Amino acid sequence: MGADHIRTIASSVPSARVSAVYDFNRDTAYAAASPVGADVVGSAEALIESSSVDAIIIASPDRTHAELVRTCLAAGKHVLCEKPLAVTADEAYGVVEAEVVGGRRLLQVGFMRRYDPGFVALRRTITDGTVGDVRLVHAIHRNASSSTSTDDAGLITGSMIHELDTIPWLLDDEIVGIRVESPVVDGFRDPQLATIWTRGGVMVTAEVFVNAGYGYDVRCEVVGSRGTASLVPSEQVSTRVAGVDGVPVRDDFVAHFADAYRIELSTWAGEALTGDTTGPSAWDGYVANAVAEAGVASLASGVREAVSLREKPAFYA
Amino acid sequence: MGADHIRTIASSVPSARVSAVYDFNRDTAYAAASPVGADVVGSAEALIESSSVDAIIIASPDRTHAELVRTCLAAGKHVLCEKPLAVTADEAYGVVEAEVVGGRRLLQVGFMRRYDPGFVALRRTITDGTVGDVRLVHAIHRNASSSTSTDDAGLITGSMIHELDTIPWLLDDEIVGIRVESPVVDGFRDPQLATIWTRGGVMVTAEVFVNAGYGYDVRCEVVGSRGTASLVPSEQVSTRVAGVDGVPVRDDFVAHFADAYRIELSTWAGEALTGDTTGPSAWDGYVANAVAEAGVASLASGVREAVSLREKPAFYA
Amino acid sequence: MGADHIRTIASSVPSARVSAVYDFNRDTAYAAASPVGADVVGSAEALIESSSVDAIIIASPDRTHAELVRTCLAAGKHVLCEKPLAVTADEAYGVVEAEVVGGRRLLQVGFMRRYDPGFVALRRTITDGTVGDVRLVHAIHRNASSSTSTDDAGLITGSMIHELDTIPWLLDDEIVGIRVESPVVDGFRDPQLATIWTRGGVMVTAEVFVNAGYGYDVRCEVVGSRGTASLVPSEQVSTRVAGVDGVPVRDDFVAHFADAYRIELSTWAGEALTGDTTGPSAWDGYVANAVAEAGVASLASGVREAVSLREKPAFYA
Amino acid sequence: MGADHIRTIASSVPSARVSAVYDFNRDTAYAAASPVGADVVGSAEALIESSSVDAIIIASPDRTHAELVRTCLAAGKHVLCEKPLAVTADEAYGVVEAEVVGGRRLLQVGFMRRYDPGFVALRRTITDGTVGDVRLVHAIHRNASSSTSTDDAGLITGSMIHELDTIPWLLDDEIVGIRVESPVVDGFRDPQLATIWTRGGVMVTAEVFVNAGYGYDVRCEVVGSRGTASLVPSEQVSTRVAGVDGVPVRDDFVAHFADAYRIELSTWAGEALTGDTTGPSAWDGYVANAVAEAGVASLASGVREAVSLREKPAFYA
Repeated sequence: MGADHIRTIASSVPSARVSAVYDFNRDTAYAAASPVGADVVGSAEALIESSSVDAIIIASPDRTHAELVRTCLAAGKHVLCEKPLAVTADEAYGVVEAEVVGGRRLLQVGFMRRYDPGFVALRRTITDGTVGDVRLVHAIHRNASSSTSTDDAGLITGSMIHELDTIPWLLDDEIVGIRVESPVVDGFRDPQLATIWTRGGVMVTAEVFVNAGYGYDVRCEVVGSRGTASLVPSEQVSTRVAGVDGVPVRDDFVAHFADAYRIELSTWAGEALTGDTTGPSAWDGYVANAVAEAGVASLASGVREAVSLREKPAFYA
Repeated sequence: MGADHIRTIASSVPSARVSAVYDFNRDTAYAAASPVGADVVGSAEALIESSSVDAIIIASPDRTHAELVRTCLAAGKHVLCEKPLAVTADEAYGVVEAEVVGGRRLLQVGFMRRYDPGFVALRRTITDGTVGDVRLVHAIHRNASSSTSTDDAGLITGSMIHELDTIPWLLDDEIVGIRVESPVVDGFRDPQLATIWTRGGVMVTAEVFVNAGYGYDVRCEVVGSRGTASLVPSEQVSTRVAGVDGVPVRDDFVAHFADAYRIELSTWAGEALTGDTTGPSAWDGYVANAVAEAGVASLASGVREAVSLREKPAFYA
Repeated sequence: MGADHIRTIASSVPSARVSAVYDFNRDTAYAAASPVGADVVGSAEALIESSSVDAIIIASPDRTHAELVRTCLAAGKHVLCEKPLAVTADEAYGVVEAEVVGGRRLLQVGFMRRYDPGFVALRRTITDGTVGDVRLVHAIHRNASSSTSTDDAGLITGSMIHELDTIPWLLDDEIVGIRVESPVVDGFRDPQLATIWTRGGVMVTAEVFVNAGYGYDVRCEVVGSRGTASLVPSEQVSTRVAGVDGVPVRDDFVAHFADAYRIELSTWAGEALTGDTTGPSAWDGYVANAVAEAGVASLASGVREAVSLREKPAFYA
Repeated sequence: MGADHIRTIASSVPSARVSAVYDFNRDTAYAAASPVGADVVGSAEALIESSSVDAIIIASPDRTHAELVRTCLAAGKHVLCEKPLAVTADEAYGVVEAEVVGGRRLLQVGFMRRYDPGFVALRRTITDGTVGDVRLVHAIHRNASSSTSTDDAGLITGSMIHELDTIPWLLDDEIVGIRVESPVVDGFRDPQLATIWTRGGVMVTAEVFVNAGYGYDVRCEVVGSRGTASLVPSEQVSTRVAGVDGVPVRDDFVAHFADAYRIELSTWAGEALTGDTTGPSAWDGYVANAVAEAGVASLASGVREAVSLREKPAFYA
C-alpha cells in the first residue's frame, strides 16, 4: 500500500514530492524510493523528525499505527494513516486526546472511499433529495480471497471497518448499534453479515465476504422513501464470447479504488499545505474502531450491541 | 386476481376451460365470465359441487381460503388456492389433515414464483453447482404502494410469504429461524427486514417494502462459495431520453409475473387431468404460514424466533 | 420449426388443435404428431383438403412455400406460411394475385418478430413520441453458426429477410433502396452490412452475421430527434463466477423468440376462427422478397439498388 | 479546452508546471492563469519563444493550429496541438514536412481517446485475441447539441475526426476508403453515417449526431470472428425513481473523457522531458485530415471515396 501511494504521488499529485521512505525491510524501502528519487532513512522516527519532511503517510502494520501517529503529532506534522487508526478503541482514543492537546488537526485516517467518485455520487443522491428519506442501506464487500483478514475479529477490524466509516459519512448520521452474525459456525466465520442501526433511524445490512472466490466486489444500495440509488460496477468494456455476455471482475482493490486513492492523496496534500485538513479525522478513526469493537462483541454474544462512545471533544465539532 | 386467471386460462391454457364463475359481487362475476362463455353460479358451494366443474381456483379474500379449500377436498376436486393458504398456521394445518384423510393430493397453493423462468433459472445455478455451496441469499420485494398489505402482520402474511416459500424451494432446505425488524418504529412498520436461517446453514436477508414509491421490484441474489447469481430485471426496451439512460419499472406484479402465472396454470391444469399434482402442496402452504407466524412474533419480540412445525405426514414425503 | 409450432399450439393455444401432420419423412411426422394425438396423413394435398382441417401451417423447405400456399388458398383455408413466402419476388407476387382473386385474406407470413414483446415495445417508443422523429435505425442479427444460410443470397433471403420485414413495420414506412456490402471478399460473404433507405427519410444499418461464434443475438436501436430506444437482452439470471460478471448468450432463436411464436400462433388461430387476419400479409411477404432481391443485386453490383414494386392491390390497403 | 488543460496540469500532472498563458482575450487569459500562478504574455509568439517555456499546448481556433505548430517546431519546442491539426490535408502535410526538416518528433496531436481507459481496454480485446479476427466496428458519437460542429464539413472535420483517428489506432490498420451519407437531405446534414474500409479488410460504421438531444454518448463495438467487445458507459450510480431504473447521460465530453485528458497530459509532459514523444504524431494528424477530406467529398458525391495519402516519410516509420 505504501509503494502504491508513492507511485500515485509521483505520477499524479503535483503539490507533493516523496522525499524520504522508511521500511523495516531496507530492500523494500529502496525499491519504492529509487524510482521517485527519494532518500531511504534508517528509522520511522528519523523520517518523522527530518526537517525535509512536511507530512507523513503511515502504511505500516496495523498494530504500529497509533504509536507512529502520536510521534507525528508530537512533531507537529501532518499525517495520513491507513485504516484502522488503532487496534483497539481505547488506543484510538489516546490518539484523539493527543491531537486535542496539540490543538491542531494534523491527522487524516485513510478511509479513501469518501473520495471515490462512485460513493460521492451515491451520497449526492441522498443530500439532493433524489431518494427521499433513507430507510435502509444494503452494503456488500467481497474479496476473491484475503491474506490479511483471516480471523473473525480481523474481518471486522480490517475489512468491514470500511463500511463502518462509510455509513455515518454517507448518511451524515451516527451508528448506535450493531449485530454481526455468520452462516459459518465452525472455524473462520466468513462471510459475516452485519445489521447496523443509526441514531437517525436507518437500518443497514452489510455483508463482508473475504473469500468470495470470484473477485473483488463492492456494492451499495440506498433505499429511501422516494426511490433507491446503487453503485454501478465500473468496468469499461464488455465482451460477448463463447456464450457469455459479461464484464471482468478483478481481485484488485487498489485498481478498483485508483481514482479514490489519487483524489484522497491529492486533497490531503493540498490541505496539508494550507493547514486545514477536512478528511476523516482522528475522531472518525476512533468511532470506526469503537463500532468495530461492538461488532466483534456481537459476533461472540449473538445479540445487538450498543455502540458506546466517549465524549466527543468540542475540537471536532 | 381471479379475473386475471380466467383471462390467462382462456387465452393460453388449452387443457382447461373456464365453465363457471362465482363472486360475492354478481356484476364482477358476470364481467369475468361473459367474455369466456362461462356460467355464473349462485354460491361457491354450488360451483364446487357442480358436475361440470373438475377443478377450482380460489382467489377470494384470505380469511375464506381454508374453508373453501376444505369444501373442495371434501368434494374430491382439484383446487388451486391463492396464497396464503390460511390466516393462521393452525388453520392451515387443518387443511393438511383434511387432505391426508382424503388420501389424494388435490391442493396446490398459488406460490407462482416456483414457475417463474427467472427464479427457475436462479435455482438451476444452485443445483448445477455454478455458485458452489450457498452461504447467503439476499432477497428484495418492493411495491410502489400497497392496498392489501397495510399492517405489520399483513406485510408478512400477505407479501413476505412469497419469500418464505421461495427460500426453502430455491435451496431445497428448511427454515428453522426468523427475525423480523424494521427501521420504522411508529405506525405501520414498512419496510421490514427479515433474517432467516435454514437447517442447512444458509442465512437469508429479505427486505419487503410495500410503499417503496418507485415501482414493483423483485430481486434475489444467491451467494455461494464459488460465486453469485442474481435475477435480472426483465424489461425489454431501454431508452436514452432527456439525460437519462433507463428502463421502466412498473407497479404491476401481474404483468411482472405473467409468464409465471401462465406456466403455473398450465402445469396445474395438465397435472389435474392426470391426478398427479407436483406443485406447492398443502404442507408447503402450512409451512409458509408457520414461518410467517414466527416472523410476526419476532417483529413483536425483537429477537429471533424458532420455527416449530408439527409432524410432517408421510403422505408429503 | 414445424415440430416447435405443434408443441406450442398443444401447450399454449386453446383456440386451436393440431389434428393432422404431414412430413416428407414419415417418421418425423409420427414423432411430431403422436404426443399431441394428431393423425399423420400421406401428402400435403391430402392434409390441406381434409375436412377436419380448418387452417394450415407451412414449415417446409423454402422452395415449396409458394406452391403450398396457393393450394391452401385454392381450398379456401387459412394458412400461416414460414418466411420467406417464396424464393423470388415474382413467385411471391403470384401468391398475392391468387389471394386477390380469391377475395379473402387467408394468408399470414411467419414474420414472428411483429409479435415479440421486445419489438412491440420498441415500436411503441416511436408511435408514442418517446424518441421523436426517427432518423436512424441500427439493427444487428447474429447466429453462432448457421446451417441454413450458407451462401451470399441465402443470407439475405433466409436471415436478413427478418430485418427487411421488421423495418417497414417498425417505422410504418416503406423501403425504397438498399445496399449490401461485406468485409469478406472471397467465399461466403458473412457478415453482410446493409444500408437501407425508407420513403420517409430514415436510414437503417443492418448487420447480419450468421457465423458470429458467440451465440444468437438480435439487437435494434432506434435513433430519433429526442432520444433513442434499444432492445434489451432478455436473460433472466446473471452470474459472477471466476472473474466474470455476465449473462449467457445461447444459440437458439426458437427459445429467444418463444413468446413471439406463442403470441403469433395464438393471435393467428384466434383470427382464423373469425376470418379477420391482421398479421403480415401476402403483400408484406412479396415486399420482403422484392427488397431481398434488390439486396442480392446490390451485393453483386456494389451500389445502392432501388426497390421497385409492382402495383399494390387495393385489397391490401 | 485550454482552461481545462491548465486545471488538469495544475491538479494532476506533477512533471509539468503552467508558467505562461496567452489568449486573444486578455481577461480570459488572466482568469485561467491566476489560479495557477502563471504569467500572462502578450502574444502566442512571445509565449512560444519565452526561455521559461519548455513545451506548449495549443487550444486555439482550428484555423490557427498549423501556423502555431510550425512556430513551435521552428523554436525547437514540444507542442501538444488540439485536433484537428489543420483545416486541410495540404496544410497538415506542411506541418509534417516542417517536422521532418527539424529532425525531431516534437508534435503530439490531441487525440485523447488513445489514452482513454475504455478505448485502451477495447483495443486490448483485439491485441490479446479475445474477439478473434476483426470483421466490423460500429462506432457512435453523439452530442446533445453542438455549437462548434454546425455545418456538413465541420461535423466531419470537427467531430467525426475523433473516429477517423481512433479506428486506425484501434485496429493497427489504415483507412483506404470512406463514404459519408445522411438521412437529412436539406440544411445541416446531421446525423451523418460513415462507412469506412481499412486496408486489412475491416468495415466500420460510424454514426455522428451532434444534435442528438439526450446527451453526450460515445459507443464502440468491435465484432470479430470469435466474439465482440463494447465500451460500457461509465456512470457510477444508478437510481430507481418514479418508475424508471436508469443512469444519467450528461452532455459534457470533458467530464466523460476526464481520465483520458489527464493521462494524455501526464504522458505527454513526461515524454517531453525526455524527448521521446510516442503519442499521435504529425503524420497521424495529417492522415486524419486527409480521411476527413475524403469524407467531405463523399458526402457531396454520394459514393465511396478513396483516401489517397502522400508518401509517408521514413521518419514516422
